[in-house]
Amino acid sequence: MLHVLVLFSLILSSSHALVQDFCVGDLKGPDGPAGFSCKPPSNLTVDDFVFTGLAKAGNTSNIISAAVTPAFVGQFPGVNGLGLSAARLDLAPGGVIPMHTHPGANELLSVLHGHITAGFIASDNSVYVTTLKKGEIMVFPQGLLHFQINAGKNGALALVTFSSPNPGLQILDFALFASNLPTKIVVKTTFLDEATVKKLKAVLGGTG
Amino acid sequence: MLHVLVLFSLILSSSHALVQDFCVGDLKGPDGPAGFSCKPPSNLTVDDFVFTGLAKAGNTSNIISAAVTPAFVGQFPGVNGLGLSAARLDLAPGGVIPMHTHPGANELLSVLHGHITAGFIASDNSVYVTTLKKGEIMVFPQGLLHFQINAGKNGALALVTFSSPNPGLQILDFALFASNLPTKIVVKTTFLDEATVKKLKAVLGGTG
Amino acid sequence: MLHVLVLFSLILSSSHALVQDFCVGDLKGPDGPAGFSCKPPSNLTVDDFVFTGLAKAGNTSNIISAAVTPAFVGQFPGVNGLGLSAARLDLAPGGVIPMHTHPGANELLSVLHGHITAGFIASDNSVYVTTLKKGEIMVFPQGLLHFQINAGKNGALALVTFSSPNPGLQILDFALFASNLPTKIVVKTTFLDEATVKKLKAVLGGTG
Amino acid sequence: MLHVLVLFSLILSSSHALVQDFCVGDLKGPDGPAGFSCKPPSNLTVDDFVFTGLAKAGNTSNIISAAVTPAFVGQFPGVNGLGLSAARLDLAPGGVIPMHTHPGANELLSVLHGHITAGFIASDNSVYVTTLKKGEIMVFPQGLLHFQINAGKNGALALVTFSSPNPGLQILDFALFASNLPTKIVVKTTFLDEATVKKLKAVLGGTG
Amino acid sequence: MLHVLVLFSLILSSSHALVQDFCVGDLKGPDGPAGFSCKPPSNLTVDDFVFTGLAKAGNTSNIISAAVTPAFVGQFPGVNGLGLSAARLDLAPGGVIPMHTHPGANELLSVLHGHITAGFIASDNSVYVTTLKKGEIMVFPQGLLHFQINAGKNGALALVTFSSPNPGLQILDFALFASNLPTKIVVKTTFLDEATVKKLKAVLGGTG
Amino acid sequence: MLHVLVLFSLILSSSHALVQDFCVGDLKGPDGPAGFSCKPPSNLTVDDFVFTGLAKAGNTSNIISAAVTPAFVGQFPGVNGLGLSAARLDLAPGGVIPMHTHPGANELLSVLHGHITAGFIASDNSVYVTTLKKGEIMVFPQGLLHFQINAGKNGALALVTFSSPNPGLQILDFALFASNLPTKIVVKTTFLDEATVKKLKAVLGGTG
Repeated sequence: MLHVLVLFSLILSSSHALVQDFCVGDLKGPDGPAGFSCKPPSNLTVDDFVFTGLAKAGNTSNIISAAVTPAFVGQFPGVNGLGLSAARLDLAPGGVIPMHTHPGANELLSVLHGHITAGFIASDNSVYVTTLKKGEIMVFPQGLLHFQINAGKNGALALVTFSSPNPGLQILDFALFASNLPTKIVVKTTFLDEATVKKLKAVLGGTG
Repeated sequence: MLHVLVLFSLILSSSHALVQDFCVGDLKGPDGPAGFSCKPPSNLTVDDFVFTGLAKAGNTSNIISAAVTPAFVGQFPGVNGLGLSAARLDLAPGGVIPMHTHPGANELLSVLHGHITAGFIASDNSVYVTTLKKGEIMVFPQGLLHFQINAGKNGALALVTFSSPNPGLQILDFALFASNLPTKIVVKTTFLDEATVKKLKAVLGGTG
Repeated sequence: MLHVLVLFSLILSSSHALVQDFCVGDLKGPDGPAGFSCKPPSNLTVDDFVFTGLAKAGNTSNIISAAVTPAFVGQFPGVNGLGLSAARLDLAPGGVIPMHTHPGANELLSVLHGHITAGFIASDNSVYVTTLKKGEIMVFPQGLLHFQINAGKNGALALVTFSSPNPGLQILDFALFASNLPTKIVVKTTFLDEATVKKLKAVLGGTG
Repeated sequence: MLHVLVLFSLILSSSHALVQDFCVGDLKGPDGPAGFSCKPPSNLTVDDFVFTGLAKAGNTSNIISAAVTPAFVGQFPGVNGLGLSAARLDLAPGGVIPMHTHPGANELLSVLHGHITAGFIASDNSVYVTTLKKGEIMVFPQGLLHFQINAGKNGALALVTFSSPNPGLQILDFALFASNLPTKIVVKTTFLDEATVKKLKAVLGGTG
Repeated sequence: MLHVLVLFSLILSSSHALVQDFCVGDLKGPDGPAGFSCKPPSNLTVDDFVFTGLAKAGNTSNIISAAVTPAFVGQFPGVNGLGLSAARLDLAPGGVIPMHTHPGANELLSVLHGHITAGFIASDNSVYVTTLKKGEIMVFPQGLLHFQINAGKNGALALVTFSSPNPGLQILDFALFASNLPTKIVVKTTFLDEATVKKLKAVLGGTG
Repeated sequence: MLHVLVLFSLILSSSHALVQDFCVGDLKGPDGPAGFSCKPPSNLTVDDFVFTGLAKAGNTSNIISAAVTPAFVGQFPGVNGLGLSAARLDLAPGGVIPMHTHPGANELLSVLHGHITAGFIASDNSVYVTTLKKGEIMVFPQGLLHFQINAGKNGALALVTFSSPNPGLQILDFALFASNLPTKIVVKTTFLDEATVKKLKAVLGGTG
């Protein structure tokens, strides 16, 4: 025994003290280009590697009849440094996840319930769109505009995972019409007419 | 129109000809450290980004009462270069995914149905184990021994995603007892007695 | 001499034969997630590392009074594998580079002539916009919507560089209104009214 | 002189103040996914880049007649951020480094003295095993089970290097039999019988 | 409105609180292998993404009749984590940027004014040299010796960008003759004679 | 048995067919920014992971009384994609590895025999130099000028490993004096006088 523990501690004491197989994020610690600093391994429990927030349906009582519940590093520090994160998409009848991008990650969508029409647009303006059934998966390359629409009569549910703990989410309409980007600039850079921009800003709460 | 198309084609002709937002794998092409070579974008359809193979349950009529259905780059070339892949875990009553590692990726498990007891062991021999319910997710860091056990009376189902198109899968018992690693070496490197090794080799088909 | 050449060739013969400090892209060779395969070093000249296509002004006689001339890997194979590429922005009076993203790279803009109003919108809808003078530089993080507008009475010129040989370029209006994404889907995913979508599709050549 | 120093300090004052060619780890500072924070360059001496701990033989008076002396970032902070680390393997006659993996790095082994039988098992259960003489090197891909056995009558010595400052080390028997993973779970996930598990737990100090 | 903001805040409150699209460097915070820690996004303004220090010509009244003005992370924290940085090269008539390397980045040079003879030497001692005109660009692979010489009668100006926020700059003569590397070692490792070394040390301020 | 093999083949047939844990380089296949394409796993033997070329001393009968024997990807295709390579340094009495850099990798040196004075120069011209004994290791950051000198009366031997399969090796004197870089340019970019440059070119075989 003793001798084993000699070898054992020789290796693992140092490992234990300073070397980690993972880096659960300490959201109160410094954040850097590679992610958050690590919680001390001695403080970790299995709960640091588990997230229960996706078990509950999101609230779809809104004008898009849909909800996105993220499990990014901000909600689930266990993904810090792992090159992975997840989110839950709830789509009520008629629900839609509007045109958006993830600036920081590729996406893999898995339909858990119902039917979803999903698609993305490539840099060369090629369009890739289809309707997915339960159990089918589709990938959406990083940074490209994409969307999901409930294609069935009933609710639909999907799990999406990302190639980064911090994929980001830029919803086109919110960026243009819920921000304070001056109407004049939105018009000049989108070819939309001023009336359309002002109307959507009124709906989505944009200013400027 | 014409003038727009001037700008348009100026950028996109070249983009279209040579620049890609993605790299759907050509499994017949050369494979390199970063993945397979890309299918020509002009040949792509939405089906290249969709995989339906996870819609069907795996066959759990085996001694582990479980099945793993992979959607790695070898089955789903659309994930090539995206830092993502997936798999479906079917666990019949009493089913278990035996102790294994993924040498090439971190894992995120999402329970879709039933209850699953899952855990991993860290380099310092700390054990992180818990029982997950439907909708709960857990992460397993790259290269560490982990397992999943059906914790319920009925079947259980999980979707796992990985931080690589090519996570690899090394099942401990298959590595030791279904390979041709000589019994003498297995004994010497695992402290297992020869009788145990021979018995398991007989069950799992190992030689040597 | 001889002895030096012994050491010399010992190292460099192999280097010369097989090891490269760089990987000039062979656009006829296979393309992979990390870029194009390399031209044989023995065939290279200094011209493989030089690109003259940015010396000439782009044609700004179009409805945006602007032109983007890329030096991406498709035009300049010398950047293959270097994590860099460039482009030239010509902005005539009143010119604008419409709202767009680069799915695959961060951008650094340097104003060479005139005044340019530039900005981007972050995932949290914060807007970062300013007017830049000659010699000033600004960065635009990967995948975020951004734009450049000529803020002066005369022409403006900028050099932009990217953190990838293959940054991609998704121009918002082209993606929505010059593609074949069905009008019904554009309407449903952008909250724009059908008339607006049809009008812009007519201008930009979209179908569906 | 003065003028040179003008240019000189122009560049290097800032470099000196803030830019580093390296990042010697400050083990008391925050640890992140990319490694430890850097010691201030002004505090560094050549000793920060040197490690003498591998000069001394490890203690092989244990049941495996072998010792692993690590020079990972925890012991040698100079490797922080360099994508490299090392370790010394001492194998007394009959010595063995038991079946193990490095979850975080590839390995390159160089035999410095004696003869070593080494091998690894791939994901497809292929076995790659051979006996190495002094001066021969072998690589072991990340995350795969591997081992080293003294193949000679006398002691053997090897230097191993890794593709990460923090390769990790998971010794199979310690993970299964020196941890607190419940015997019932070990049995269920390894097909080993309970008696074998309990016997090895008794030897290696496992609980549960 | 309310409902939108429900969805909206659901996603963006967390994003806003903890998830960033970028990581502007906090030069007072910890520095790690991946760069500096991030300034809190709530404190950021557009000025954090803009650098005006390259608008002013460098002082070329020195023995090389040239100046390098860096916009590395140390001067422009906005490039932290973006894989990009820049610098301005001013070359008076007869000016030269002496033989140097960037240990940490590839370089892309763009001639803004005048004519510049530039070149680099590869590991196999191949030489790639040419003379560039206004608007032409050239790349210099990481870590290779290279130089720029004013090839015209008047001043020349170039903008260089790098594939890292922290490219480093090692000027050969400063390393050898402005450092405290003992003359005996310089002689032994460069084949230069002692008189030459001592003369250049006297000019450049080296000791030892 | 059958049932196990069902699961077994379900997973491993595909793995075996298309997914690799490693990518042994096919030096006849295409080379890309991430390395060479992979040899088919079915053709591999343990010899693909072993290199015996470092077992033999290099020929030190040359003017530097030293030899470098590389085990880079060009000589040892097994390191392809592994982020590792190695080399053997033989230093006869009085031997020296002249001032050089590795443009593509960090280095870890281990002294196997004798005494070696080693050092490097940082971007800020700080010098880190020491004398190493048998068993001591030292790291040299990527791209920085460094050297090794036999510090003993007898021969010295070292094993060096690198953080890349393709570290590159630029020997300062060979780059300047064994290349065809015109003498006039060498003089202008190094401050060396023409006589010195011509003398060294004569010794090392440079032209121009």
